[in-house]
Amino acid sequence: MLLCDIGNSSFDFYDTESQTHTKVSIEAYRPIHQSATVYYINVNPNVETFLNDLPQWINIAPYIRLETAYETLGIDRKAAIAHFSDAVVVDAGSAITVDKIQKGIYQGGFIFPGFAKMEASYREISSRLDYLLNFELSFDTMPKNSQDAISYGALIPLVREIERQAGDLPLILTGGDGKALVRFFDHADYRPHLLFDAMHAIIKREQEKGTLC
Amino acid sequence: MLLCDIGNSSFDFYDTESQTHTKVSIEAYRPIHQSATVYYINVNPNVETFLNDLPQWINIAPYIRLETAYETLGIDRKAAIAHFSDAVVVDAGSAITVDKIQKGIYQGGFIFPGFAKMEASYREISSRLDYLLNFELSFDTMPKNSQDAISYGALIPLVREIERQAGDLPLILTGGDGKALVRFFDHADYRPHLLFDAMHAIIKREQEKGTLC
Repeated sequence: MLLCDIGNSSFDFYDTESQTHTKVSIEAYRPIHQSATVYYINVNPNVETFLNDLPQWINIAPYIRLETAYETLGIDRKAAIAHFSDAVVVDAGSAITVDKIQKGIYQGGFIFPGFAKMEASYREISSRLDYLLNFELSFDTMPKNSQDAISYGALIPLVREIERQAGDLPLILTGGDGKALVRFFDHADYRPHLLFDAMHAIIKREQEKGTLC
Repeated sequence: MLLCDIGNSSFDFYDTESQTHTKVSIEAYRPIHQSATVYYINVNPNVETFLNDLPQWINIAPYIRLETAYETLGIDRKAAIAHFSDAVVVDAGSAITVDKIQKGIYQGGFIFPGFAKMEASYREISSRLDYLLNFELSFDTMPKNSQDAISYGALIPLVREIERQAGDLPLILTGGDGKALVRFFDHADYRPHLLFDAMHAIIKREQEKGTLC
């Protein structure tokens, strides 16, 4: 089964049989899978017209259930958080989304710019702040150099807020930058294919019910 | 006395007699004060050549003392924090800097993108995140709409980290966006002219010593 998560910057394909993951940037994408059945979710308004021209591509958004979500909650966030009854899910990609569910009831969530965007922001503010983030940074002392000063700003307030929201709930990290974040938490689980696992589970459930082919 | 704080995006003039404040964007600036004595500090590498051509402009950076600062600490941050013995100083402009001093010893600091830059980041990530930040946002509940989801991300982790760093120390806010931040803290003092007060005090001290005219 071929799944696709369409984000703001890329098409992420996942083949559930071979468990292979292929990421293609939005700009570089050519419709290579036009004749295959692709189950997808999409948050990118710019590709909607393009998707409507692909009859074999099936949008699974209508099958994702989370009654307590709000109307404009990104469908990727909705699919990922609805996969759990009790969790905080952090998806660290071009944006970093933090969502919370307790006893199956969605508690809300917030959005932080992705780390590449944070680096670009600092660089655009001043050439003196043009550094990569230092993920080896210490928590315990306030920075005394420019690279750590921006790294601390981009990482530590966010990490502490995620920890505060998670409390005793399971904390699940996913997305390209999720792996780099794991080291900041005592108990966190990095699941690179979380969204595809969630999509796969939804499709199987609906296929068993006969509501999706 | 005419003071000027040159930042990444503007020339900020302050007349200590009339207490008038004039802000001119870097791009729009014409050397209107070429024949007057202007005491300045500058963090913007792009205007250094320009400043060297103005003999009446006096850089007060060499007179700012904070032995415990690090070499690349912005001179504006250094001037503001060196004005106190015990404080956390937050300067919310095109960048938001947070610096801490205790018993006259600089403890370090961190940098967060300014709020306009955060809004631009969200907008660039997705047209669905194109909102102004909501400064009336509630702290206590996780957001359930897109505008509050980005506002929470841009504001709350930062506010909580500032509060954590301040602890029982006086918390001083300055900069254009400092005013909007005050409401988030139980005890904070907004001083729009903090940097000019600090510059003025340094100049008076040096003039009394006869080391500056």
